[in-house]
Amino acid sequence: MRDFSAGLAHLAINTATLRKQLELPAILEACARRGIRSVCPWRDQVKRAGLASVARQLRDSQIALSGYCRGGFFPAADALGLRTALDDNRKAIDEAKTLGAPCLVLVVGALPGALQGRPAHKDIALARAQVVDGIAATLAYARQVAMPLAIEPLHPMQAADRACINTTEHALDICDALDPNRSGALGVAIDVYHTWWDPKLESQIARAGRDRLLAYHVCDWLLPTRDLLNDRGMMGDGIVELKKIRAWVEAAGYLGPAEVEIFSERWWNEPTEVLLDTCEARYHTVV
Amino acid sequence: MRDFSAGLAHLAINTATLRKQLELPAILEACARRGIRSVCPWRDQVKRAGLASVARQLRDSQIALSGYCRGGFFPAADALGLRTALDDNRKAIDEAKTLGAPCLVLVVGALPGALQGRPAHKDIALARAQVVDGIAATLAYARQVAMPLAIEPLHPMQAADRACINTTEHALDICDALDPNRSGALGVAIDVYHTWWDPKLESQIARAGRDRLLAYHVCDWLLPTRDLLNDRGMMGDGIVELKKIRAWVEAAGYLGPAEVEIFSERWWNEPTEVLLDTCEARYHTVV
Repeated sequence: MRDFSAGLAHLAINTATLRKQLELPAILEACARRGIRSVCPWRDQVKRAGLASVARQLRDSQIALSGYCRGGFFPAADALGLRTALDDNRKAIDEAKTLGAPCLVLVVGALPGALQGRPAHKDIALARAQVVDGIAATLAYARQVAMPLAIEPLHPMQAADRACINTTEHALDICDALDPNRSGALGVAIDVYHTWWDPKLESQIARAGRDRLLAYHVCDWLLPTRDLLNDRGMMGDGIVELKKIRAWVEAAGYLGPAEVEIFSERWWNEPTEVLLDTCEARYHTVV
Repeated sequence: MRDFSAGLAHLAINTATLRKQLELPAILEACARRGIRSVCPWRDQVKRAGLASVARQLRDSQIALSGYCRGGFFPAADALGLRTALDDNRKAIDEAKTLGAPCLVLVVGALPGALQGRPAHKDIALARAQVVDGIAATLAYARQVAMPLAIEPLHPMQAADRACINTTEHALDICDALDPNRSGALGVAIDVYHTWWDPKLESQIARAGRDRLLAYHVCDWLLPTRDLLNDRGMMGDGIVELKKIRAWVEAAGYLGPAEVEIFSERWWNEPTEVLLDTCEARYHTVV
């Protein structure tokens, strides 16, 4: 297992972690000052800052991407919605390319309208079929431009409204179906928050292997968890066995960064430097 | 599929649904008045009312049990805790026997101390091993007295603190290991709230079959869900495909009642008759 106790070579910051404190250019400046060498930005943050400007800042500050958040949300209630989602994913791929991302992370979507509290239907099997079709269509373009797609299985508590792919096994079944030759064009993003509970996690990480392990996200599961979306914990503050899971992903061949992705009302209210100090300290000790 | 549109023959009420409104004797009276013919009481409710008294009231009012809640919570931080859990499960079996329950529902437990916010450790694999050992030891006594044990897989969002068995597949793997001959002594309780999201639910229900489908619980998954424990929805108010899942359990051979189990701050604040009226109406139309 790699030694994280010194240096920051394998630390990445998902920029949603600081979305309430700073705009993206300031986040990148803060990371550059500290010697944090990779980030995973979100599309809305990039849009506000300007794609070309962000690309330039990344180059100038020699910050790499650990991924780009996010494509997906494929299911829709009608043909226009399905088409719009595909167009949007194509744009996300182009942006990821411009920024030099190693992969586009896919939060695949679920029941159309559910995130707005008005689900168009309850047929999760239909949503799942639309996800597979959407990934298949997007993959054709992603292959052309060589941008790997990383399916992120989300926690089952988000199955209705955010992502109807909820286990690593299910995500890998889709990879097997759409990319049977393991070309590297399609894989998974393993986020410990979404997957720690899965009794098959170790075996499915081994199954994924280096070809399909495209991203690794860390935070923690708090006791009690008070919100289904924005109560993620800082690494070490919850019950996730972070070193055990990292050992599994590294044994399977993953050598990319550990990306800190914390959606937390608590941490969004902390000063930037306190939050980043804590991320670094926990990276050295518990990740 | 059975017709639920008239009569109440297949409706059961899990008495936690009314735990803030009434004590158990009054819940049983309300059910008897309405012609609801089965309930699943909780141990704390039975204890307050007195075991012998509840048994007598059930006989007198000809109300059957759909199950008994609950055994389980096997993991512990030390040998004394493990032994105490086994003793307590033995007592639960005896109570279930006295009340004429068709099964004892097991909420298996998870990280010891987690429910109190002070987990003794983070090793979920250890907790899972202790669960298997605990069920094995309890099963020996349950067989002697002919009280089937129903493992209830809980939603993965409750994996750390309430039950570390979170998929029907995992529960059935344990059934296969401990009761390979499918004697009927060990099976599962399928609660749609905990399992609706599972892409393998249909296939695992079929795998369970009549021998292992010991209970079927209904409520609904709300959008948004605001609490990880006490925000269950009334059937029809959320996105669970209730009739589709009931078709699966009936096709697999389950012919017991549909048991309404709603933990909800909202419904606990409604008058008893409004809540039971609604349960009956939804039983007829959407369950």
